[in-house]
Amino acid sequence: MTTQTGHEIRLASRPHGWPTPENFALVTVEVPDPGPGQVLIRNTYMSVDPYMRGRMNDVPSYVPPFQVDKALDGGALGEVIASNSDRVRVGDTVMHGYGWRDLVVLDDKRVRVMDARGVPSPSVLLGALGMPGLTAYVGLLDIAAFQPGEAVFVSGAAGAVGSMVGQIAKLRGAARVVGSAGSAEKVDYCVNKLGYDAAFNYRDGRVKDLLRDAAPDGIDVYFDNVGGDHLTAAIFSLKRNGRVALCGAIDQYNATAPVAGPPNLALAVGKRLTLRGYIVSDHESRMPDFLAEARVWLRDGKLACDDTIVDGLAKAPEAFIGLLRGENTGKMVVKL
Amino acid sequence: MTTQTGHEIRLASRPHGWPTPENFALVTVEVPDPGPGQVLIRNTYMSVDPYMRGRMNDVPSYVPPFQVDKALDGGALGEVIASNSDRVRVGDTVMHGYGWRDLVVLDDKRVRVMDARGVPSPSVLLGALGMPGLTAYVGLLDIAAFQPGEAVFVSGAAGAVGSMVGQIAKLRGAARVVGSAGSAEKVDYCVNKLGYDAAFNYRDGRVKDLLRDAAPDGIDVYFDNVGGDHLTAAIFSLKRNGRVALCGAIDQYNATAPVAGPPNLALAVGKRLTLRGYIVSDHESRMPDFLAEARVWLRDGKLACDDTIVDGLAKAPEAFIGLLRGENTGKMVVKL
Repeated sequence: MTTQTGHEIRLASRPHGWPTPENFALVTVEVPDPGPGQVLIRNTYMSVDPYMRGRMNDVPSYVPPFQVDKALDGGALGEVIASNSDRVRVGDTVMHGYGWRDLVVLDDKRVRVMDARGVPSPSVLLGALGMPGLTAYVGLLDIAAFQPGEAVFVSGAAGAVGSMVGQIAKLRGAARVVGSAGSAEKVDYCVNKLGYDAAFNYRDGRVKDLLRDAAPDGIDVYFDNVGGDHLTAAIFSLKRNGRVALCGAIDQYNATAPVAGPPNLALAVGKRLTLRGYIVSDHESRMPDFLAEARVWLRDGKLACDDTIVDGLAKAPEAFIGLLRGENTGKMVVKL
Repeated sequence: MTTQTGHEIRLASRPHGWPTPENFALVTVEVPDPGPGQVLIRNTYMSVDPYMRGRMNDVPSYVPPFQVDKALDGGALGEVIASNSDRVRVGDTVMHGYGWRDLVVLDDKRVRVMDARGVPSPSVLLGALGMPGLTAYVGLLDIAAFQPGEAVFVSGAAGAVGSMVGQIAKLRGAARVVGSAGSAEKVDYCVNKLGYDAAFNYRDGRVKDLLRDAAPDGIDVYFDNVGGDHLTAAIFSLKRNGRVALCGAIDQYNATAPVAGPPNLALAVGKRLTLRGYIVSDHESRMPDFLAEARVWLRDGKLACDDTIVDGLAKAPEAFIGLLRGENTGKMVVKL
């Protein structure tokens, strides 16, 4: 059996608080030729996602924790360069769950052959048309039960998920879509590229005040990517029968002590609010519905999907840390 | 026009924090004879309820605030002693919204004629078979979507609403029902009279630990009457797809500063939790369903409804303050 030399990023140590480059190690490995029913893949793009921070802690969660001195994993796209499968061929573009490495051998049932036609960059298959896009679609339409004519507030509004929430809300007939992001550039991007009716930089004041100014008539739906002050502000601005999709709390992923919850949660009684958490992997059956709509929007030029692309496997830890700092606009991906 | 001498309790001043007897004033008033379509009622029982505390603040809420120097109001039962109505007769037992007084003249469309047959005390019509009972029924079955075989946790477990939640959960097939209350006597009442599988005195330790010991396999539903530490503990103990009915936050009604929210709310994402606030007045259409079930349970001796009865209108402020302190077991009512 021959092998080829590949590279992978391992978890060198568990971060305490914010991750640092020292928590990661780039290692050279020998990758075998594909056995029966297997394919050898050269990865072209890999995803870095906020949920990966949780997996770096040694606590039970909805996905098992990463192991120290083992390779990290996550969503990736690659090209099949050798195949022992009768289903997947050399040259196919495939999606799979073995990112954080450049070469990988996998059973063909672990890969999905992708159709990259009509997408501006293959990386879009990891972002706007991938898991983040589905997260936005399910959270807005199924979890928050958004209806046309309603007002929507999105935090992390320029990120992989948030940018899709804002756009889907507008395309599905929202009366007003308001976004929060962490820089003037992102605010500009939200309003001028993504079509938000208003957006603000949450570093410019109290989120409660900024939101009230941006949505003076209140909101019906809050799509929560961050938790913390944003959730509190949303509870103040939500109208009667308002809904919150709890998608993530990036504010808290690096916290080393408990973070206070919204001090105004008791308002949920009188306002008849619903707050609902969800995980996109429970809703994969909605992918065909989502893609049917999203591919039309994309074809018709109605969907902006600008990714932040970092170059090279060695830079993947940096890309991940940058993601947690909010350095991305749109989906953060690493080009391998 | 002749009149008769009656008495009413007015809001003398708005409480700051805990209410005191000085916030109330007992006043003598002249009550006119009933005009056309009106009835004169001698009230027999009046309700004191936690939500009334919110109405003593001058802030917009789901019911308008009480006015200083005006009579308070709330649910009451009375006997018609004079009638100018062709629908309501002298001798009828009626329910209406004008408590905190002994005599009242009302248009007949503002009163509901009640059937007190088969109930151990007319006060039950204000409690187990009244608004608190419906609150329990709707919150457990509609808001928290309780299913037979699930485990339920209730705070304020011996109170007007909580005692009904616990009993309805058992009668509807809960696998395990756990309650929290504020004294050893109430814990005993929960287990030995109401049929809870387990109950604890929340003053005996950390609610998180007490709940874990009482429901070691976790809970599916939390019925929240108190907020604060109880909600935090419930979020820790809730299983995947768990639901919380947010009914009230008595912990916070007398707070003079914001109360921190649950520091673990971010767990709602991975656990796929739903937290939903509601107000019973939105759900009055469920009253016939509730009464159809509850009257059968009562007839068959399956429903305990022990009220705490305080004697005399002058004691109503004391009864209300005692309610906020948790001095009641079951519904707190004032006998007039």
